Amino acid sequence: MALGIGVIGVGMIGQEHIRRLDGGPGGSRVVAVADADAERAATVAGQLPAAKALPTGEELIASEAVDAVVVTSWGPTHEAYVLAAIAAGKPVFCEKPLATTAGACRRIVDAEVAAGRRLVQVGFNRRYDPAHRALKAAVDGGAIGAPLLVHCAHRNASAPPHYTREMSIADTAVHEIDELRWLFGQDIAGVQVLTPRKSSRGGALQDPLLVLFEMADGVLVDLEVSVNIHYGYEIRCEVSGETGTVELADPAPVTIRREGAAGGLVPADWRERFALSYDIELREWVDTVAAARPPLGPSAWDGFAAQAVCDAALQSLQSGGRVAVELPTQLGLYAPAP
Amino acid sequence: MALGIGVIGVGMIGQEHIRRLDGGPGGSRVVAVADADAERAATVAGQLPAAKALPTGEELIASEAVDAVVVTSWGPTHEAYVLAAIAAGKPVFCEKPLATTAGACRRIVDAEVAAGRRLVQVGFNRRYDPAHRALKAAVDGGAIGAPLLVHCAHRNASAPPHYTREMSIADTAVHEIDELRWLFGQDIAGVQVLTPRKSSRGGALQDPLLVLFEMADGVLVDLEVSVNIHYGYEIRCEVSGETGTVELADPAPVTIRREGAAGGLVPADWRERFALSYDIELREWVDTVAAARPPLGPSAWDGFAAQAVCDAALQSLQSGGRVAVELPTQLGLYAPAP
Amino acid sequence: MALGIGVIGVGMIGQEHIRRLDGGPGGSRVVAVADADAERAATVAGQLPAAKALPTGEELIASEAVDAVVVTSWGPTHEAYVLAAIAAGKPVFCEKPLATTAGACRRIVDAEVAAGRRLVQVGFNRRYDPAHRALKAAVDGGAIGAPLLVHCAHRNASAPPHYTREMSIADTAVHEIDELRWLFGQDIAGVQVLTPRKSSRGGALQDPLLVLFEMADGVLVDLEVSVNIHYGYEIRCEVSGETGTVELADPAPVTIRREGAAGGLVPADWRERFALSYDIELREWVDTVAAARPPLGPSAWDGFAAQAVCDAALQSLQSGGRVAVELPTQLGLYAPAP
Amino acid sequence: MALGIGVIGVGMIGQEHIRRLDGGPGGSRVVAVADADAERAATVAGQLPAAKALPTGEELIASEAVDAVVVTSWGPTHEAYVLAAIAAGKPVFCEKPLATTAGACRRIVDAEVAAGRRLVQVGFNRRYDPAHRALKAAVDGGAIGAPLLVHCAHRNASAPPHYTREMSIADTAVHEIDELRWLFGQDIAGVQVLTPRKSSRGGALQDPLLVLFEMADGVLVDLEVSVNIHYGYEIRCEVSGETGTVELADPAPVTIRREGAAGGLVPADWRERFALSYDIELREWVDTVAAARPPLGPSAWDGFAAQAVCDAALQSLQSGGRVAVELPTQLGLYAPAP
Repeated sequence: MALGIGVIGVGMIGQEHIRRLDGGPGGSRVVAVADADAERAATVAGQLPAAKALPTGEELIASEAVDAVVVTSWGPTHEAYVLAAIAAGKPVFCEKPLATTAGACRRIVDAEVAAGRRLVQVGFNRRYDPAHRALKAAVDGGAIGAPLLVHCAHRNASAPPHYTREMSIADTAVHEIDELRWLFGQDIAGVQVLTPRKSSRGGALQDPLLVLFEMADGVLVDLEVSVNIHYGYEIRCEVSGETGTVELADPAPVTIRREGAAGGLVPADWRERFALSYDIELREWVDTVAAARPPLGPSAWDGFAAQAVCDAALQSLQSGGRVAVELPTQLGLYAPAP
Repeated sequence: MALGIGVIGVGMIGQEHIRRLDGGPGGSRVVAVADADAERAATVAGQLPAAKALPTGEELIASEAVDAVVVTSWGPTHEAYVLAAIAAGKPVFCEKPLATTAGACRRIVDAEVAAGRRLVQVGFNRRYDPAHRALKAAVDGGAIGAPLLVHCAHRNASAPPHYTREMSIADTAVHEIDELRWLFGQDIAGVQVLTPRKSSRGGALQDPLLVLFEMADGVLVDLEVSVNIHYGYEIRCEVSGETGTVELADPAPVTIRREGAAGGLVPADWRERFALSYDIELREWVDTVAAARPPLGPSAWDGFAAQAVCDAALQSLQSGGRVAVELPTQLGLYAPAP
Repeated sequence: MALGIGVIGVGMIGQEHIRRLDGGPGGSRVVAVADADAERAATVAGQLPAAKALPTGEELIASEAVDAVVVTSWGPTHEAYVLAAIAAGKPVFCEKPLATTAGACRRIVDAEVAAGRRLVQVGFNRRYDPAHRALKAAVDGGAIGAPLLVHCAHRNASAPPHYTREMSIADTAVHEIDELRWLFGQDIAGVQVLTPRKSSRGGALQDPLLVLFEMADGVLVDLEVSVNIHYGYEIRCEVSGETGTVELADPAPVTIRREGAAGGLVPADWRERFALSYDIELREWVDTVAAARPPLGPSAWDGFAAQAVCDAALQSLQSGGRVAVELPTQLGLYAPAP
Repeated sequence: MALGIGVIGVGMIGQEHIRRLDGGPGGSRVVAVADADAERAATVAGQLPAAKALPTGEELIASEAVDAVVVTSWGPTHEAYVLAAIAAGKPVFCEKPLATTAGACRRIVDAEVAAGRRLVQVGFNRRYDPAHRALKAAVDGGAIGAPLLVHCAHRNASAPPHYTREMSIADTAVHEIDELRWLFGQDIAGVQVLTPRKSSRGGALQDPLLVLFEMADGVLVDLEVSVNIHYGYEIRCEVSGETGTVELADPAPVTIRREGAAGGLVPADWRERFALSYDIELREWVDTVAAARPPLGPSAWDGFAAQAVCDAALQSLQSGGRVAVELPTQLGLYAPAP
């Protein structure tokens, strides 16, 4: 029988995930949805063959039809839903951020440890992108020797009006924060946020930012965060090692020659660039849940560690100086390291 | 309940497809396998949660547990299995070639027309490759104006010992033959096979070949077929139009700089290069079968038309001259054109 | 004292070369110019510090101030000027074509052989392009094993109104004809011209063409000639060998990301693309002339051999069939082979 | 008559330049050489048609045969030779650095100002590299909007045993320091040197470095300096602007497919990468000197400004913190700004 999925929060990314989860991988089926906007929940449920709209996330989590929970609601609500899912003993996939402060993340970690088994997976989809996997395979395979430096760029064509410089860290750079921990299998020890000349395209927003990360072993990373760069959505990353470098290639599938130029099209946004990574991520999650195995993807601890780095970066954004990141020893439930 | 799939022929590509079909997209399940090598069938069945090994393809097709059939056996056996599936009224996915002569393909077409509904899909996976789709989208979207010329290359690192020059057409170039019909929405009107200087790496084999195709509207295509080129597996295609060109980009996901060189890795073989296209192809097929809709992919007519071009190319390989391709009017069941 | 150069024909390419020859490499100086348009000759001479306009090319060749001659006049006039320069014992650099028929070229060869020393260089500038040199170095160095097939494209943004399909061969494809002889150190044995779907951008002109060349050792070459392709000027070439391939890289020096696309600018015309090759070509020529050494570049024999292939291609353009190229044994003055 | 050039310091780069200056552009001629190693000077002179070896740089500068001076000796000797050339009223081309401290550079500036005319050009060859010029043209032309951030990398395959971390700044990063001033037409206001994980390939040397530059208008630049990266020599630069980015393209002229990889060769060292820029730089210099015009290239003031940034960077290398760069107002002789 198909795995019954309940989805809390059916905005853009929630609807994207529903498309992947209903009648999709492993025969999963979306059986319940909930949203702060009850009308939206009803509309979305009405378009699905087997889903009911439930009044609250809590009722959804409690529903007998729901075998596993997907949390794609507003960030500040994540903590409560994830804790409820843990309490109900149901697997839960939570979009990033796991929660909006390191403290809240820590409470989730503690609840999961108390439950004694891994129920939580965090939606850091970069780990499922084939290009990022090829990058990690090259580094791990020794193609470039020991890594020493990394240059990254995270660029969005435009940011919505309510976007703040804090979101440049907590919503945007958080992807690289998890990626770096995963790529190098170690934690980030320090962070500093620098503010270059401001783009005139972002109104009062301080955009772009240049964020420096120090990995535990001294690898130094610089990250450009540009959220109003107009030309398109692009993720760049080059790792410099002792004997060579590896970088993400241009993802355009074809080269077009026209009007005096030769090149590829740039994705308009993250949905286009990372569609395949979401497919793979959710398929793997459904497969492990269906098989009653612990999730293979980013854990609650990864969500906690990423949030601790975000907190430090937000502090540096205020002070301008370097801020050290202090993390407790990783708890046994989550070993081995990232 | 999961769709029950029966697979006839469990060699390399059969096993590849089983991996995609069992517990995979849409909740399909491989319930039966058959193979000329009964021991191999038993071994493969033994590794699957719900599959039985059946003695013959015919029994597999007749089995009540089998909702739909996948034919991945040796080419000369395709005709009989596909005809049997049509007779049983069961959807059938047949790997290319649909059958080894245009005459045999025509018998399949006639049987399907007599049955009055589309049951057959042919495994021309190029149509599902995202890069080829982007190529077609650029051409169709007018990015390069009317297409006039095409340069293609189909390269394999090495061919098995039993590989013949006829297979260069019927097993290798057949992919471009279908691709060209699909890309331009029209038939191939003529073909000529030229034999350049022979590679010393292929023993007595005439390798490479240069194949010229004329599309119905005069677009001229040259195709390099190299099956022992050592460096890896690669598919190249550039379409030249009235105002520009579009070509497949290098598919490597990362650029590595080491040992005096900068570039991407080349896939070792077609499985690596086209893995994603097979995923998408079989997922779409399972979805349409599960929904009791006619298949969206390449039809029996497409298989027939491709084989007619292969037959002409094989004739040109003998004579050295241009051979015209004559096709009857496309039957109503298959409209609209490719 | 600076080498005195006389330039016959001061249209676009003549003026381009004057810019390189006056006060440029090795201290050469343009001391005389001549042109069918006497007024233009006077204007050009007036812009140079030390040049006189002379009434005819013959008088220019005879002038004592002229140490060496550059012929950049209309093709049909080349033969007479080159023969006169040989008769005067003066080194002569002649833009391609050496002459407009193989017979005329042969008369130049015979005159030079009779003179007993090499005085003629033909302006096949591809041999001086760093990218083409790197292509040849890779082939000669064994990077791809024995060459077997070549794919070329020669594209112009637009052709002038008086451009004919014969010029597609004699003025455009002639560059590849010489390039192939130089690249592989052997002659072209056969040629066939195919006519694909016609571009609507060229009026009555048959554009593009697909030209097939067979090298003496069986290497097969296909060449797209497009002269109205709008997007820009581009020269493409990929050589497929037994173990790999080598191709000209995109020559754009920078990658620009803007407006949803990432790529390089395409040169507008051959002057932009090949400026450096002309610099190197003329500098080498002046250096050898100044040192009283025989020219190192393409010889009269090369001009003759290229024209013989053009003649065969023009014949194929009429007949549509393959035409063999017959060349006499290369004369001793020109050994070793290309 | 040919311009007579005297070259002081005939080590590797001195000999490279002699090859370009003797019998080369504009008919210049190397008429005298000097070197701390008198034997080396004699050997080099012996290979030239018209050069004498003189015992000291001072005598060379004073020689009547010498119209213009090239200083390619050891950095600490530059100041004295350049001052002597100014005193003699002779044009002088000085390889970078102009002098090894900002103070010494300032004395050169003062002497040139006192002389009342520009005699000095500094060998910042990046300004003559066609790719860097295309980068600047794209920025200046508005292709990417206002520049905001820059990512640079300066990589050498290996450093000699005597190479120090101070040389990473003064000999290596100094190229980017001048390039940034030229690219953006403004000064560098602050600099900070960060020390990532150390490469095991450089012995005790701190390699790589990450250097941050702040331009006067707030553009922020990060520069990787790696001097033992083994794979080859490479210069990378991407400028991020308000609406797009522009970066140096891969300079490889051909793409080679072999042994499972597709890509270009990386230059072994700076001589290979920048050969053309030296050709253009020295040709322009000889042309302006021969025409008795002031040099068009980097001025003594540019040498002074670059050295002031180096001094600040060296101070940051000690302290780890940001160091502001203080420059006096640019003197009238050197206007307009870089």
